[in-house]
Amino acid sequence: MSDAWLEEVAWDGAGLVPAIAQEAGTGKVLMLAWMNRDALAETVRTGRAVYWSRSRQKLWRKGEESGHVQRVREVRLDCDGDVLLLEVEQVGGLACHTGRARCFFRRLDGSLWAEVEAVIKDPREIYKPKP
Amino acid sequence: MSDAWLEEVAWDGAGLVPAIAQEAGTGKVLMLAWMNRDALAETVRTGRAVYWSRSRQKLWRKGEESGHVQRVREVRLDCDGDVLLLEVEQVGGLACHTGRARCFFRRLDGSLWAEVEAVIKDPREIYKPKP
Repeated sequence: MSDAWLEEVAWDGAGLVPAIAQEAGTGKVLMLAWMNRDALAETVRTGRAVYWSRSRQKLWRKGEESGHVQRVREVRLDCDGDVLLLEVEQVGGLACHTGRARCFFRRLDGSLWAEVEAVIKDPREIYKPKP
Repeated sequence: MSDAWLEEVAWDGAGLVPAIAQEAGTGKVLMLAWMNRDALAETVRTGRAVYWSRSRQKLWRKGEESGHVQRVREVRLDCDGDVLLLEVEQVGGLACHTGRARCFFRRLDGSLWAEVEAVIKDPREIYKPKP
Protein backbone atom coordinates (compact mmCIF):
# COMPACT_ATOMS: atom_id res chain seq x y z
CA MET A 1 0.00 0.00 0.00
CA SER A 2 1.33 3.40 -0.96
CA ASP A 3 2.03 5.68 1.96
CA ALA A 4 1.44 8.85 -0.03
CA TRP A 5 -1.48 9.55 2.32
CA LEU A 6 1.02 9.83 5.17
CA GLU A 7 2.86 12.54 3.27
CA GLU A 8 -0.33 14.57 2.97
CA VAL A 9 -0.24 15.16 6.71
CA ALA A 10 1.50 18.42 7.56
CA TRP A 11 3.85 17.07 10.24
CA ASP A 12 5.31 19.82 12.41
CA GLY A 13 8.99 20.54 12.94
CA ALA A 14 9.20 17.66 15.42
CA GLY A 15 7.40 15.32 13.02
CA LEU A 16 4.20 15.39 15.04
CA VAL A 17 0.55 16.42 14.78
CA PRO A 18 -2.15 16.55 17.47
CA ALA A 19 -4.74 13.77 17.34
CA ILE A 20 -8.13 14.19 18.99
CA ALA A 21 -9.91 11.03 20.15
CA GLN A 22 -13.70 11.28 20.09
CA GLU A 23 -15.90 8.49 21.38
CA ALA A 24 -18.14 6.80 18.83
CA GLY A 25 -21.78 6.94 19.81
CA THR A 26 -21.56 9.49 22.62
CA GLY A 27 -19.49 12.04 20.69
CA LYS A 28 -17.52 12.83 23.83
CA VAL A 29 -14.07 14.23 23.24
CA LEU A 30 -11.95 11.90 25.33
CA MET A 31 -8.40 13.18 24.96
CA LEU A 32 -5.81 14.74 22.73
CA ALA A 33 -2.42 13.17 22.17
CA TRP A 34 0.26 13.37 19.50
CA MET A 35 1.17 11.18 16.57
CA ASN A 36 4.19 10.83 14.34
CA ARG A 37 4.27 8.93 11.03
CA ASP A 38 4.93 5.59 12.67
CA ALA A 39 2.12 6.07 15.19
CA LEU A 40 -0.41 6.94 12.51
CA ALA A 41 0.72 4.15 10.20
CA GLU A 42 0.45 1.57 12.99
CA THR A 43 -2.92 2.97 14.10
CA VAL A 44 -4.33 2.54 10.62
CA ARG A 45 -2.72 -0.85 10.08
CA THR A 46 -3.87 -2.35 13.39
CA GLY A 47 -7.09 -0.43 14.03
CA ARG A 48 -5.89 0.48 17.52
CA ALA A 49 -4.82 3.98 18.56
CA VAL A 50 -1.06 4.42 18.84
CA TYR A 51 0.33 7.79 19.87
CA TRP A 52 3.77 9.31 20.30
CA SER A 53 4.59 10.03 23.90
CA ARG A 54 6.44 13.32 23.99
CA SER A 55 7.49 12.79 27.62
CA ARG A 56 8.80 9.27 27.08
CA GLN A 57 9.88 9.88 23.47
CA LYS A 58 8.52 6.60 22.23
CA LEU A 59 5.46 5.03 20.68
CA TRP A 60 2.59 4.78 23.11
CA ARG A 61 0.22 1.94 22.33
CA LYS A 62 -2.79 3.27 24.20
CA GLY A 63 -3.96 0.68 26.70
CA GLU A 64 -0.78 -1.41 26.62
CA GLU A 65 -0.59 -1.28 30.43
CA SER A 66 -4.18 -0.54 31.41
CA GLY A 67 -5.94 -2.65 28.82
CA HIS A 68 -7.96 0.45 27.92
CA VAL A 69 -7.26 0.32 24.22
CA GLN A 70 -9.03 2.46 21.67
CA ARG A 71 -10.49 0.76 18.61
CA VAL A 72 -10.35 3.22 15.76
CA ARG A 73 -13.36 3.44 13.49
CA GLU A 74 -12.44 6.46 11.45
CA VAL A 75 -9.54 8.85 10.92
CA ARG A 76 -10.06 12.39 9.70
CA LEU A 77 -7.69 15.17 8.70
CA ASP A 78 -8.42 18.88 8.88
CA CYS A 79 -8.26 21.57 6.22
CA ASP A 80 -4.66 22.51 6.98
CA GLY A 81 -3.63 18.87 7.21
CA ASP A 82 -2.08 19.39 10.63
CA VAL A 83 -4.71 17.93 12.99
CA LEU A 84 -6.16 14.41 13.13
CA LEU A 85 -9.56 13.42 14.50
CA LEU A 86 -10.13 9.79 15.49
CA GLU A 87 -13.47 8.20 16.11
CA VAL A 88 -12.83 5.50 18.69
CA GLU A 89 -14.44 2.88 20.85
CA GLN A 90 -12.92 3.24 24.29
CA VAL A 91 -12.47 -0.20 25.79
CA GLY A 92 -13.14 -0.18 29.53
CA GLY A 93 -14.84 3.20 29.28
CA LEU A 94 -11.78 4.94 30.71
CA ALA A 95 -9.57 7.13 28.54
CA CYS A 96 -7.78 9.07 31.28
CA HIS A 97 -4.87 7.84 33.38
CA THR A 98 -6.57 9.47 36.38
CA GLY A 99 -9.28 6.81 36.20
CA ARG A 100 -11.87 9.08 34.62
CA ALA A 101 -13.84 8.44 31.46
CA ARG A 102 -12.14 11.34 29.74
CA CYS A 103 -9.23 13.71 30.20
CA PHE A 104 -11.34 16.90 30.01
CA PHE A 105 -12.62 16.72 33.56
CA ARG A 106 -11.99 20.32 34.60
CA ARG A 107 -14.53 22.99 33.67
CA LEU A 108 -14.00 26.70 34.12
CA ASP A 109 -16.59 27.98 36.61
CA GLY A 110 -16.03 31.71 37.07
CA SER A 111 -12.33 31.85 37.89
CA LEU A 112 -11.91 28.29 39.09
CA TRP A 113 -11.31 24.99 37.33
CA ALA A 114 -13.92 22.70 38.84
CA GLU A 115 -13.56 18.93 38.62
CA VAL A 116 -16.79 17.77 37.04
CA GLU A 117 -16.14 14.14 36.15
CA ALA A 118 -15.93 11.37 38.69
CA VAL A 119 -13.01 9.02 39.18
CA ILE A 120 -14.48 5.71 38.08
CA LYS A 121 -11.52 3.53 38.96
CA ASP A 122 -8.55 4.12 41.24
CA PRO A 123 -5.43 4.54 39.07
CA ARG A 124 -3.60 2.17 41.42
CA GLU A 125 -6.06 -0.48 40.31
CA ILE A 126 -5.54 0.38 36.66
CA TYR A 127 -1.75 0.37 36.69
CA LYS A 128 -0.86 -2.53 38.87
CA PRO A 129 2.82 -3.17 39.45
CA LYS A 130 4.12 -6.19 37.60
CA PRO A 131 4.41 -9.21 39.90
CA MET B 1 -10.97 38.73 39.06
CA SER B 2 -7.87 36.76 39.88
CA ASP B 3 -6.16 35.23 36.88
CA ALA B 4 -4.68 32.34 38.84
CA TRP B 5 -6.80 30.04 36.66
CA LEU B 6 -4.78 31.21 33.64
CA GLU B 7 -1.60 30.09 35.37
CA GLU B 8 -3.01 26.60 35.83
CA VAL B 9 -2.83 26.11 32.10
CA ALA B 10 0.42 24.42 31.07
CA TRP B 11 1.37 26.81 28.27
CA ASP B 12 4.01 25.37 25.96
CA GLY B 13 7.39 26.90 25.18
CA ALA B 14 5.74 29.32 22.76
CA GLY B 15 3.08 30.25 25.32
CA LEU B 16 0.37 28.30 23.49
CA VAL B 17 -1.99 25.37 23.97
CA PRO B 18 -4.26 23.65 21.44
CA ALA B 19 -7.97 24.43 21.79
CA ILE B 20 -10.59 22.09 20.34
CA ALA B 21 -13.93 23.62 19.36
CA GLN B 22 -16.87 21.23 19.65
CA GLU B 23 -20.35 22.21 18.57
CA ALA B 24 -23.00 22.35 21.28
CA GLY B 25 -25.96 20.12 20.53
CA THR B 26 -24.47 18.12 17.68
CA GLY B 27 -21.20 17.27 19.43
CA LYS B 28 -19.33 17.69 16.14
CA VAL B 29 -15.66 18.54 16.49
CA LEU B 30 -15.41 21.63 14.30
CA MET B 31 -11.75 22.64 14.42
CA LEU B 32 -8.60 22.90 16.45
CA ALA B 33 -6.73 26.15 16.83
CA TRP B 34 -4.26 27.58 19.32
CA MET B 35 -4.60 29.97 22.23
CA ASN B 36 -2.21 32.03 24.29
CA ARG B 37 -3.02 33.69 27.63
CA ASP B 38 -4.52 36.77 26.01
CA ALA B 39 -6.68 34.72 23.67
CA LEU B 40 -8.08 32.58 26.47
CA ALA B 41 -8.62 35.56 28.77
CA GLU B 42 -10.50 37.45 26.05
CA THR B 43 -12.51 34.35 25.12
CA VAL B 44 -13.70 33.95 28.69
CA ARG B 45 -14.30 37.68 29.20
CA THR B 46 -16.32 38.16 26.00
CA GLY B 47 -17.86 34.72 25.52
CA ARG B 48 -16.57 34.59 21.94
CA ALA B 49 -13.76 32.35 20.77
CA VAL B 50 -10.46 34.15 20.25
CA TYR B 51 -7.45 32.17 19.06
CA TRP B 52 -3.79 32.91 18.40
CA SER B 53 -2.94 32.73 14.73
CA ARG B 54 0.47 31.11 14.45
CA SER B 55 0.78 32.06 10.78
CA ARG B 56 -0.16 35.70 11.31
CA GLN B 57 1.31 35.89 14.83
CA LYS B 58 -1.61 37.83 16.22
CA LEU B 59 -4.92 37.36 17.99
CA TRP B 60 -7.55 35.89 15.73
CA ARG B 61 -11.06 36.83 16.74
CA LYS B 62 -12.86 33.97 15.04
CA GLY B 63 -15.48 35.38 12.67
CA GLU B 64 -14.09 38.91 12.59
CA GLU B 65 -14.09 38.85 8.77
CA SER B 66 -16.65 36.14 8.00
CA GLY B 67 -19.16 36.89 10.74
CA HIS B 68 -18.95 33.23 11.70
CA VAL B 69 -18.22 33.82 15.35
CA GLN B 70 -18.26 31.09 17.97
CA ARG B 71 -20.24 31.70 21.14
CA VAL B 72 -18.52 29.83 23.93
CA ARG B 73 -20.71 27.96 26.39
CA GLU B 74 -18.09 26.07 28.31
CA VAL B 75 -14.32 25.79 28.60
CA ARG B 76 -12.63 22.62 29.78
CA LEU B 77 -9.02 21.74 30.57
CA ASP B 78 -7.50 18.28 30.38
CA CYS B 79 -5.64 16.24 32.97
CA ASP B 80 -2.21 17.54 31.96
CA GLY B 81 -3.49 21.10 31.72
CA ASP B 82 -2.16 21.49 28.22
CA VAL B 83 -5.27 21.12 26.04
CA LEU B 84 -8.50 23.16 26.06
CA LEU B 85 -11.92 21.98 24.93
CA LEU B 86 -14.53 24.60 24.05
CA GLU B 87 -18.21 23.96 23.67
CA VAL B 88 -19.41 26.49 21.12
CA GLU B 89 -22.38 27.64 19.12
CA GLN B 90 -21.14 28.14 15.58
CA VAL B 91 -22.87 31.19 14.12
CA GLY B 92 -23.62 30.71 10.43
CA GLY B 93 -23.04 26.98 10.73
CA LEU B 94 -19.62 27.30 9.07
CA ALA B 95 -16.44 26.84 11.05
CA CYS B 96 -14.03 26.22 8.17
CA HIS B 97 -12.50 28.87 5.93
CA THR B 98 -13.13 26.50 3.00
CA GLY B 99 -16.87 27.11 3.40
CA ARG B 100 -17.57 23.80 5.11
CA ALA B 101 -19.35 23.24 8.40
CA ARG B 102 -16.17 21.88 9.95
CA CYS B 103 -12.47 21.61 9.25
CA PHE B 104 -12.33 17.80 9.51
CA PHE B 105 -13.71 17.13 6.06
CA ARG B 106 -11.19 14.53 4.89
CA ARG B 107 -11.64 10.91 5.93
CA LEU B 108 -9.12 8.19 5.37
CA ASP B 109 -10.63 5.59 3.02
CA GLY B 110 -8.06 2.86 2.47
CA SER B 111 -5.02 4.86 1.43
CA LEU B 112 -6.81 8.00 0.25
CA TRP B 113 -8.11 11.06 2.04
CA ALA B 114 -11.66 11.41 0.74
CA GLU B 115 -13.52 14.70 1.02
CA VAL B 116 -16.72 13.81 2.82
CA GLU B 117 -18.23 17.16 3.76
CA ALA B 118 -19.81 19.51 1.27
CA VAL B 119 -18.82 23.09 0.63
CA ILE B 120 -21.86 24.98 1.88
CA LYS B 121 -20.75 28.44 0.86
CA ASP B 122 -18.13 29.63 -1.62
CA PRO B 123 -15.21 31.12 0.34
CA ARG B 124 -15.24 34.07 -2.08
CA GLU B 125 -18.69 34.83 -0.75
CA ILE B 126 -17.54 34.51 2.83
CA TYR B 127 -14.46 36.69 2.56
CA LYS B 128 -15.53 39.53 0.36
CA PRO B 129 -12.93 42.15 -0.44
CA LYS B 130 -13.49 45.42 1.35
CA PRO B 131 -15.13 48.02 -0.92
